[in-house]
Amino acid sequence: MKTSAKFYHAGCPVCLEAESVVTRYLDPTKVNVEVVHLGSAKNRVAEAEAAGVKSVPALVIDGQPIHLNFGAALADLK
Amino acid sequence: MKTSAKFYHAGCPVCLEAESVVTRYLDPTKVNVEVVHLGSAKNRVAEAEAAGVKSVPALVIDGQPIHLNFGAALADLK
Repeated sequence: MKTSAKFYHAGCPVCLEAESVVTRYLDPTKVNVEVVHLGSAKNRVAEAEAAGVKSVPALVIDGQPIHLNFGAALADLK
Repeated sequence: MKTSAKFYHAGCPVCLEAESVVTRYLDPTKVNVEVVHLGSAKNRVAEAEAAGVKSVPALVIDGQPIHLNFGAALADLK
Protein backbone atom coordinates (compact mmCIF):
# COMPACT_ATOMS: atom_id res chain seq x y z
CA MET A 1 0.00 0.00 0.00
CA LYS A 2 1.37 3.43 -0.96
CA THR A 3 1.98 5.96 1.77
CA SER A 4 1.81 9.72 1.42
CA ALA A 5 4.53 12.11 2.50
CA LYS A 6 4.90 15.87 2.64
CA PHE A 7 8.14 17.67 1.89
CA TYR A 8 8.08 21.08 3.58
CA HIS A 9 10.55 23.71 2.45
CA ALA A 10 10.97 27.46 2.00
CA GLY A 11 12.86 27.69 -1.27
CA CYS A 12 16.30 28.08 0.36
CA PRO A 13 19.41 26.54 -1.31
CA VAL A 14 19.56 23.76 1.30
CA CYS A 15 15.86 23.14 0.67
CA LEU A 16 16.25 22.84 -3.09
CA GLU A 17 19.19 20.44 -2.76
CA ALA A 18 17.23 18.20 -0.39
CA GLU A 19 14.14 18.46 -2.61
CA SER A 20 16.02 17.17 -5.64
CA VAL A 21 17.15 14.08 -3.68
CA VAL A 22 13.71 13.45 -2.18
CA THR A 23 11.82 13.78 -5.49
CA ARG A 24 14.47 11.86 -7.49
CA TYR A 25 15.15 8.91 -5.16
CA LEU A 26 11.97 8.15 -3.18
CA ASP A 27 10.20 5.13 -4.67
CA PRO A 28 7.07 6.34 -6.50
CA THR A 29 5.48 2.88 -6.23
CA LYS A 30 5.62 3.17 -2.42
CA VAL A 31 5.17 6.87 -1.62
CA ASN A 32 3.37 9.94 -2.98
CA VAL A 33 5.27 13.11 -2.07
CA GLU A 34 3.53 16.48 -1.90
CA VAL A 35 6.00 19.35 -2.03
CA VAL A 36 4.85 22.28 0.12
CA HIS A 37 6.60 25.66 -0.20
CA LEU A 38 5.90 27.29 3.17
CA GLY A 39 7.19 30.61 1.91
CA SER A 40 4.22 30.88 -0.45
CA ALA A 41 1.77 28.69 1.49
CA LYS A 42 2.08 30.48 4.84
CA ASN A 43 -1.33 29.09 5.81
CA ARG A 44 0.28 25.63 6.07
CA VAL A 45 3.01 26.55 8.59
CA ALA A 46 0.69 25.52 11.45
CA GLU A 47 0.07 22.16 9.74
CA ALA A 48 3.84 21.56 9.49
CA GLU A 49 4.31 22.57 13.13
CA ALA A 50 1.53 20.20 14.21
CA ALA A 51 3.34 17.39 12.33
CA GLY A 52 6.44 18.03 14.47
CA VAL A 53 8.42 20.05 11.94
CA LYS A 54 10.87 22.45 13.64
CA SER A 55 12.99 23.49 10.65
CA VAL A 56 12.94 23.21 6.88
CA PRO A 57 13.56 21.30 4.77
CA ALA A 58 11.67 18.45 6.40
CA LEU A 59 10.00 15.30 5.15
CA VAL A 60 6.98 14.01 7.07
CA ILE A 61 6.47 10.36 6.21
CA ASP A 62 4.47 7.73 8.12
CA GLY A 63 3.67 10.54 10.56
CA GLN A 64 7.36 10.92 11.34
CA PRO A 65 9.12 14.29 10.82
CA ILE A 66 12.61 13.96 9.34
CA HIS A 67 14.58 17.20 9.23
CA LEU A 68 17.03 17.19 6.28
CA ASN A 69 20.09 19.30 7.08
CA PHE A 70 19.06 22.80 8.24
CA GLY A 71 17.78 25.51 5.97
CA ALA A 72 15.68 27.69 8.26
CA ALA A 73 13.79 27.45 11.53
CA LEU A 74 10.02 27.04 11.15
CA ALA A 75 9.59 29.97 13.57
CA ASP A 76 11.23 32.25 11.00
CA LEU A 77 8.47 31.42 8.49
CA LYS A 78 5.64 32.65 10.68
CA MET B 1 21.92 4.59 -14.16
CA LYS B 2 21.82 3.53 -10.50
CA THR B 3 23.63 5.64 -7.97
CA SER B 4 25.13 4.44 -4.70
CA ALA B 5 24.47 5.97 -1.31
CA LYS B 6 25.79 5.43 2.20
CA PHE B 7 23.62 5.68 5.29
CA TYR B 8 25.86 6.41 8.28
CA HIS B 9 24.47 5.83 11.75
CA ALA B 10 25.46 4.79 15.26
CA GLY B 11 22.56 2.61 16.32
CA CYS B 12 20.78 5.38 18.29
CA PRO B 13 16.95 5.50 18.37
CA VAL B 14 16.89 8.49 15.99
CA CYS B 15 19.24 6.55 13.71
CA LEU B 16 17.07 3.45 13.61
CA GLU B 17 13.92 5.48 12.86
CA ALA B 18 15.65 7.26 9.97
CA GLU B 19 17.16 3.98 8.75
CA SER B 20 13.74 2.35 8.47
CA VAL B 21 12.50 5.22 6.27
CA VAL B 22 15.64 5.27 4.11
CA THR B 23 15.71 1.51 3.51
CA ARG B 24 11.94 1.25 3.03
CA TYR B 25 11.28 4.23 0.73
CA LEU B 26 14.38 4.86 -1.39
CA ASP B 27 13.84 3.48 -4.91
CA PRO B 28 15.96 0.31 -5.30
CA THR B 29 15.91 0.67 -9.10
CA LYS B 30 17.69 4.05 -8.74
CA VAL B 31 19.94 3.75 -5.68
CA ASN B 32 21.95 1.13 -3.79
CA VAL B 33 22.19 2.01 -0.10
CA GLU B 34 25.02 0.71 2.07
CA VAL B 35 24.18 0.97 5.77
CA VAL B 36 27.29 1.76 7.84
CA HIS B 37 27.14 1.44 11.64
CA LEU B 38 29.92 3.80 12.77
CA GLY B 39 29.70 2.47 16.32
CA SER B 40 31.04 -0.89 15.16
CA ALA B 41 32.96 0.30 12.08
CA LYS B 42 35.00 3.01 13.83
CA ASN B 43 37.57 2.79 11.03
CA ARG B 44 34.99 4.43 8.71
CA VAL B 45 34.39 7.58 10.80
CA ALA B 46 37.14 9.38 8.84
CA GLU B 47 35.44 8.36 5.57
CA ALA B 48 32.13 9.81 6.78
CA GLU B 49 33.86 13.01 7.92
CA ALA B 50 35.58 13.35 4.53
CA ALA B 51 32.15 13.04 2.88
CA GLY B 52 30.96 16.05 4.89
CA VAL B 53 29.05 14.19 7.58
CA LYS B 54 28.90 16.16 10.85
CA SER B 55 26.27 14.16 12.75
CA VAL B 56 24.44 10.86 12.45
CA PRO B 57 22.18 9.66 11.03
CA ALA B 58 23.27 10.95 7.65
CA LEU B 59 22.72 9.85 4.08
CA VAL B 60 25.45 10.61 1.53
CA ILE B 61 23.96 10.45 -1.95
CA ASP B 62 25.35 11.90 -5.17
CA GLY B 63 28.26 13.11 -3.04
CA GLN B 64 25.88 15.23 -0.99
CA PRO B 65 25.63 14.74 2.81
CA ILE B 66 22.04 14.92 4.13
CA HIS B 67 21.79 14.92 7.91
CA LEU B 68 18.48 13.32 9.02
CA ASN B 69 17.32 14.82 12.31
CA PHE B 70 20.09 14.66 14.95
CA GLY B 71 21.17 11.52 16.73
CA ALA B 72 24.77 12.21 17.70
CA ALA B 73 27.67 14.38 16.62
CA LEU B 74 30.27 12.60 14.51
CA ALA B 75 32.94 13.91 16.90
CA ASP B 76 31.40 11.81 19.67
CA LEU B 77 32.05 8.64 17.66
CA LYS B 78 35.80 9.15 17.43
